[in-house]
Amino acid sequence: MKSLTKAPGLLSRHGLTSLTTRASTFQQRLYSSAPLAPEATTQTAAKKPQRQVIFSGIQPTGVPHLGNYLGALQQWKRMQDNADPETTDLIFSVVDLHAITVPQQRGNLRKWKREMLATLLAIGLDPKRCTIFYQSMVPGHSELQWILSCTASTGYLSRMTQWKSKLQLADDANMLDDKAKLSLKHGLFSYPILQAADILVHRATHVPVGEDQRQHLEFARECVTNFNHAYKGKVLVAPETILSPTKRVMSLQMPTKKMSKSDPDPTSRILLTDTPSEIHSKILKARTDSLTPSLGITFDPVQRPGVSNLLQLLSHFDSQNRSAQEIAAQINAEVGNQLGGEGEENPLRKLKERVSEVVQRELNPIRERYLELLQGDEGKEGGYLDEVIKEGARKANESAERTMSRVRRAVELGA
Amino acid sequence: MKSLTKAPGLLSRHGLTSLTTRASTFQQRLYSSAPLAPEATTQTAAKKPQRQVIFSGIQPTGVPHLGNYLGALQQWKRMQDNADPETTDLIFSVVDLHAITVPQQRGNLRKWKREMLATLLAIGLDPKRCTIFYQSMVPGHSELQWILSCTASTGYLSRMTQWKSKLQLADDANMLDDKAKLSLKHGLFSYPILQAADILVHRATHVPVGEDQRQHLEFARECVTNFNHAYKGKVLVAPETILSPTKRVMSLQMPTKKMSKSDPDPTSRILLTDTPSEIHSKILKARTDSLTPSLGITFDPVQRPGVSNLLQLLSHFDSQNRSAQEIAAQINAEVGNQLGGEGEENPLRKLKERVSEVVQRELNPIRERYLELLQGDEGKEGGYLDEVIKEGARKANESAERTMSRVRRAVELGA
Repeated sequence: MKSLTKAPGLLSRHGLTSLTTRASTFQQRLYSSAPLAPEATTQTAAKKPQRQVIFSGIQPTGVPHLGNYLGALQQWKRMQDNADPETTDLIFSVVDLHAITVPQQRGNLRKWKREMLATLLAIGLDPKRCTIFYQSMVPGHSELQWILSCTASTGYLSRMTQWKSKLQLADDANMLDDKAKLSLKHGLFSYPILQAADILVHRATHVPVGEDQRQHLEFARECVTNFNHAYKGKVLVAPETILSPTKRVMSLQMPTKKMSKSDPDPTSRILLTDTPSEIHSKILKARTDSLTPSLGITFDPVQRPGVSNLLQLLSHFDSQNRSAQEIAAQINAEVGNQLGGEGEENPLRKLKERVSEVVQRELNPIRERYLELLQGDEGKEGGYLDEVIKEGARKANESAERTMSRVRRAVELGA
Repeated sequence: MKSLTKAPGLLSRHGLTSLTTRASTFQQRLYSSAPLAPEATTQTAAKKPQRQVIFSGIQPTGVPHLGNYLGALQQWKRMQDNADPETTDLIFSVVDLHAITVPQQRGNLRKWKREMLATLLAIGLDPKRCTIFYQSMVPGHSELQWILSCTASTGYLSRMTQWKSKLQLADDANMLDDKAKLSLKHGLFSYPILQAADILVHRATHVPVGEDQRQHLEFARECVTNFNHAYKGKVLVAPETILSPTKRVMSLQMPTKKMSKSDPDPTSRILLTDTPSEIHSKILKARTDSLTPSLGITFDPVQRPGVSNLLQLLSHFDSQNRSAQEIAAQINAEVGNQLGGEGEENPLRKLKERVSEVVQRELNPIRERYLELLQGDEGKEGGYLDEVIKEGARKANESAERTMSRVRRAVELGA
């Protein structure tokens, strides 16, 4: 979900960890450059390959920044490019029903949803290949939320950490805490159930998540167990977790903190819509450190978080998949022994110029396409964006309805 | 809602109490035999009369008994007969999404819903006049439930008493109680929000409730305040409460307890489907008391709960609206001074015979129509019952959609 972008740096750049072997194999395929082979190859020839469904959601919280892009969106694009359409469905949701669990400024949500939609298309998601939709356009999500809540434990929910962190309470705080009693809204408390419904209503088999969302995925699996037990059947499918390679991007001004849209300093982040000159200026102003230039540049996230963040960025975008260390060494080498020199010959300056150049190269086409989508005819009412979201909602409703008709039959709802 | 039937005997038989003057006037009209005059008569002639919407729900919990009938269903029928169709909509829901907040035996819910539908028609509700539907066929209910939850306070919910009574906890128990931590399901805890959504999604202006449901209606009004405040508009309508005349029916075997479907002794209750001979036999076996017959029969709910329950029943069905005391006096007089006599001349026996006769007269046509509806062609798949519920769901969806389109616009959900 949203917090894919919060995954800490536990995994090496191209390493992928999963909670099951099956998912692991799947991931290796997903991230390989070769298209996925149908599952049949590992099964008996007669057996029809099981369809795989990847689901992920993102909150509409304004124009995404580089951290959102590297943390989640770029991964979605890669899944689209690598997964075999014959065996894999991709479902991506802009989760507006989650967004309202915290207060919204009037006018923002509608705008941010549209901007997020434009972003998803601008980064290259193909609405013919993926199902892209606003969560609130598919009633199955809230319907299943209610149904799951009837077999979900309030005690389990009360132990989860997200509502506590949103209220800035300690992880071991409880519902009787004064602040919780005063200000906890029921929707925020129930958030994990809606998140489970998002996944389960589409019978997702694989969900890419960051480390911090493992608790929620575990809860979704618990929802499946509770439901299937109560209704004596394999009605819902437990999703596998795809633990994604972590690409954490830090604030350009406070490089010990994650890049964040809520940081009051706009120079702390690069937005996908920043112009080349904005990108250049922000990167050149990025806080690094005052360690003696004679050290050159080194990858050391603890001692030199600013420099390391920039190196990490270069590594994320590197076409040769070089590590941050390798890149540091190369820049030092290029500058030669003229350490401590001025201008281009200063390795720190060289690093920043290179980051600026690479980020511009990555973001420029996205930004141009984004503006085209929002500002041209495509963004007008009834234009391309509207068409895309209408068609996405239609497909998502079809997908949800397939599950909901089974659920209603099992629970004995409906006529 | 369901617990209309739980209203304690606070109000005199034909007395009606409301929380607002406006509702009070409305009720007097509702219960008068004359059709309601359009609201315009009390407004300026030019002003269009405001449409009134009465909403009530009932849980499908098996064939209703006499207590359910007198506590809620008979009142629905009277509202239908007395409210002016030009100004008043009647919406009655069989609330299956509420039913699943407690575990259900497989096969029961589907059966009980159908039986409840047949009951509603058998008591004379006219699907052309009322909107009768299963809650789960109208997605607006669960969608609004989620949306309301985002501005509803978890602290408020945790102070409500229903979840505690269902778990057999004290009214001052809290969420950290061991039993709550172990067994409280989130749906049961969230029950009042769905109930609020039921009412608000149809813009109900009037909701008939028993004393024990006032807390839930108050919560629904709180949901309106929270929502309208958060979204800065009069989007949702706060419902008025119609506090209904209490008709509490006690167990025939333990007359200090309410008649209940969960009582293990089937002779403790009369079902709407009981045959005349079953009714006769149950009433004759009804527990009364061994006070000396020389007292005759007297209305004294504390000292003589059994006799008083039977007298109360007679009074509820009395065409002349006589009180239980008046009826007792008349029976004593009819038997004359032969108190302590045998057979028909025993006033207690006379009372029972009269109750049996009156209850049979009331229930026989209902039972016959009920069986016809369930067992004849009308009950077959695609038959009349299916038609009714399909058409009811269509109308209820239309009603809900009118509210939901406003809600979505205010919350900035949808496309």
